[in-house]
Amino acid sequence: MVKQKKSRYACAATPKGFRDYFAHEVTRRRDMLAQISEIYELYGFEALESPAVETLEALGKFLPDIDRPNEGVFAWQEEGEWLALRYDLTAPLSRVYAQHRAHLPLPYRRYMMGPVWRNEKPGPGRFRQFYQCDADSIGSASVAADAEMCSMLSAALAHLGIGKDIGIIRLNSRKILSAVMEKAGLYDLQNPAMGQDKRMAVLRTVDKFDRLGREGVLQLLGEGRKDESSDFTKGAGLSALQSDVILSFVEGRRATNAQTLENLRDIVADTQSGKQAVDEVEQIAGLAYQEGAPIVIDPVVVRGLGYYTGSVFEAELTFEIKDEKGQRRHFGSVAGGGRYDDLITRFTGQKVPAVGVSIGVDRLLAALEAKGYFTDQRRKGPVIVTVMDRAFLSDYQKIVDRLRAANIQSELYLGNFKNFGNQLKYADQRKAPFAIIQGSNERARNIVQIKDLALGEKISQTASLDEWKARPAQQEIAMDDIVEELKKMLARDKP
Amino acid sequence: MVKQKKSRYACAATPKGFRDYFAHEVTRRRDMLAQISEIYELYGFEALESPAVETLEALGKFLPDIDRPNEGVFAWQEEGEWLALRYDLTAPLSRVYAQHRAHLPLPYRRYMMGPVWRNEKPGPGRFRQFYQCDADSIGSASVAADAEMCSMLSAALAHLGIGKDIGIIRLNSRKILSAVMEKAGLYDLQNPAMGQDKRMAVLRTVDKFDRLGREGVLQLLGEGRKDESSDFTKGAGLSALQSDVILSFVEGRRATNAQTLENLRDIVADTQSGKQAVDEVEQIAGLAYQEGAPIVIDPVVVRGLGYYTGSVFEAELTFEIKDEKGQRRHFGSVAGGGRYDDLITRFTGQKVPAVGVSIGVDRLLAALEAKGYFTDQRRKGPVIVTVMDRAFLSDYQKIVDRLRAANIQSELYLGNFKNFGNQLKYADQRKAPFAIIQGSNERARNIVQIKDLALGEKISQTASLDEWKARPAQQEIAMDDIVEELKKMLARDKP
Repeated sequence: MVKQKKSRYACAATPKGFRDYFAHEVTRRRDMLAQISEIYELYGFEALESPAVETLEALGKFLPDIDRPNEGVFAWQEEGEWLALRYDLTAPLSRVYAQHRAHLPLPYRRYMMGPVWRNEKPGPGRFRQFYQCDADSIGSASVAADAEMCSMLSAALAHLGIGKDIGIIRLNSRKILSAVMEKAGLYDLQNPAMGQDKRMAVLRTVDKFDRLGREGVLQLLGEGRKDESSDFTKGAGLSALQSDVILSFVEGRRATNAQTLENLRDIVADTQSGKQAVDEVEQIAGLAYQEGAPIVIDPVVVRGLGYYTGSVFEAELTFEIKDEKGQRRHFGSVAGGGRYDDLITRFTGQKVPAVGVSIGVDRLLAALEAKGYFTDQRRKGPVIVTVMDRAFLSDYQKIVDRLRAANIQSELYLGNFKNFGNQLKYADQRKAPFAIIQGSNERARNIVQIKDLALGEKISQTASLDEWKARPAQQEIAMDDIVEELKKMLARDKP
Repeated sequence: MVKQKKSRYACAATPKGFRDYFAHEVTRRRDMLAQISEIYELYGFEALESPAVETLEALGKFLPDIDRPNEGVFAWQEEGEWLALRYDLTAPLSRVYAQHRAHLPLPYRRYMMGPVWRNEKPGPGRFRQFYQCDADSIGSASVAADAEMCSMLSAALAHLGIGKDIGIIRLNSRKILSAVMEKAGLYDLQNPAMGQDKRMAVLRTVDKFDRLGREGVLQLLGEGRKDESSDFTKGAGLSALQSDVILSFVEGRRATNAQTLENLRDIVADTQSGKQAVDEVEQIAGLAYQEGAPIVIDPVVVRGLGYYTGSVFEAELTFEIKDEKGQRRHFGSVAGGGRYDDLITRFTGQKVPAVGVSIGVDRLLAALEAKGYFTDQRRKGPVIVTVMDRAFLSDYQKIVDRLRAANIQSELYLGNFKNFGNQLKYADQRKAPFAIIQGSNERARNIVQIKDLALGEKISQTASLDEWKARPAQQEIAMDDIVEELKKMLARDKP
């Protein structure tokens, strides 16, 4: 039972698939979440925070591509009950709504942001803990609720600087896909449950169209597909004719929404449900306010999660990046959602209409990084007050106290005081804009030296000789003027 | 293996000891965390976020009052490795520092906020997931680092509205306690490891002084104590003489810090380490900037966690509340910290000095609630645009679009449109300040009715008849003036 110890010391490592986030990685995400919250609140959604831990029973199993039981989530047994870390924010919302519905407004419109956990194979840029940032309307069957989600997603992206030039919202409906599967003979009307596995396989296959392309999807709809590493994935077993019907739908997008709608109406012409579904998509696109990224009706979007029952949509960033293999490709999806009218039935037995959106904050941060949104070169670290003489520690401390009282981000150097070079090296590592120095000479004259640490960098980059002269690397400042002078000097560096 | 299902439906309940947080419960905490971050950043600390999941090996076991192995944390096995949810933010920091130290500045000063999990018996107001909000300096042995923690804690509380009138920072040192235990004969100088269990028992007992009082602590230092439910807790087994030495220290606080220091010097007079420890505490109190809650040297503060090696401190709120039994008592501790110089040794074998502070955000929120900081009665919900006639849904939607474009928090009613009364009931439940109504008559005249939902409440409370006349409950506004009028009306309600 007891594991053999390999070392006298504990191993300092994150578990496989987890990582730490430092400094601006944390604050950029925090700022992004705050900006998205602003839009969710502007739209009248209220905040919710449910615990990270749920019963496995409450979570259910709705992850895509998970065929084996107990896979996909981190779960453990506690006093005979299976607990698990949430794998998304939608399953917990369903539990929250079912548990508290007597006291919640109807419709219940809430947003929630936080980490979720997936017990899946980690890969490059794929971690087992990542952030989601969701908004959902529960209790509204109206297309206006679907439209609102698309509008809000477009507005949130616009608020983050992602407008119509680089983003689109791709909209589709699971109901149209169902009608198409009906047309392809994948439903037995006498026995609707039959063929459920096959239909799920079609869904998961279509969801991979952006990645695998036409040929890969055709193989997976049929007999199966051998991937680059020669692993064989069994296909859904559709006939060539059936696959053609599915493909004609998936590739049904045309130059304008009006043309796409017309094309879709042709494809589902024989089914009543299909025609209604196309009408609904048209209404959603018509009602949505598209200040930012516009709505593009695109049947290729089906979303992998099992629980969607109506509209499905994704925010796609259309600019190109180079992938791991150096290939240029669209950045791709950063958010998505849809209507799920059956999820709460699991708890209450009643059908409760619901529609939601989830923004993948970590992917969105990567997108903004790729677009060069975070290139601000200013040194944003604290002002460092150095310690020349330990005996006067409390005098140095008082300088820091004054700066902080004036709301200037600053700190006393707290490392080993003996080596002064280390203090400046530390200041540099912290991206400090200035260091304050006071030796015995300066103390006697009641002044400090303010060393401009940004200047060194700047000279080597862009500054002219005139600039350099106008801005000495080190200045003597009277003790009484420190706050005022530093405020001026810090303001000078604002963009 | 398969559990017998009790019902056809999944049980909608949080796991035992967990809870959901709604609306202002979430935003108040978020705002508090943002305010504390501001102070941590002002002090030059940088952000860190480590994952919720760590290896059990990296976490170690430092929880107070946990005598049984594997208790206290939520842990599970994954591919042969024990993983666990973090129980605080200090243990993960030690792992982070040991793992990344080659790339981190020294001293490494970071803050981190987020939930932690304890697998302990839940009680009233005690949950298994709660927030912590920490700042730590790693790599500084200077008393200036301890002082900075106390200053920053005082400043953070002041920033939240908790000043010297209702808060104090109680400061002590584990080193003085060690000297006192040495004096009481609890150390065998030939064999320092001996008696470790007994000393830990003394530590845990003293930590309960605020709750159990003198008599309870004396019993627990001696043979043991029977609590109110007649459960017997075995004591530390000290002699009466030994207990007296400990108690004289614990009750060693005097009217001023100078008097307390004098008293402590008397108590530890025979030990060199004790005198040094008292000097250090004096230096820390002297260096700390105490704009808000002042530092009070108080030997009763020892902190329950096993890893502290030097200074220990707690922020205590001194105002009284009624407890569950209706007894008036001080609100008590909301934050604490101290020096822990050995925690990183577990990973690296090297002693790395460290000092940190942790703010218990949930307790602090409860404190501010108890002080009546959240009594703002304004209706802060969104403006609700009601739907009189479904056929004109897109017209109603356009009104909402206009309000949102003008940054007015608003929403279209998305529930069942048939019952208009439900729409106003919903607006009331959402604390909407205004509802916008447009029937066919209003549509023909290109106006809307703006219904003042706050007024009803106000009339029944404080408004005079004149106020009521000056502010009708319902106003006709021209469509073109909606944004301007609503902005005026919303501004009128600002405090």
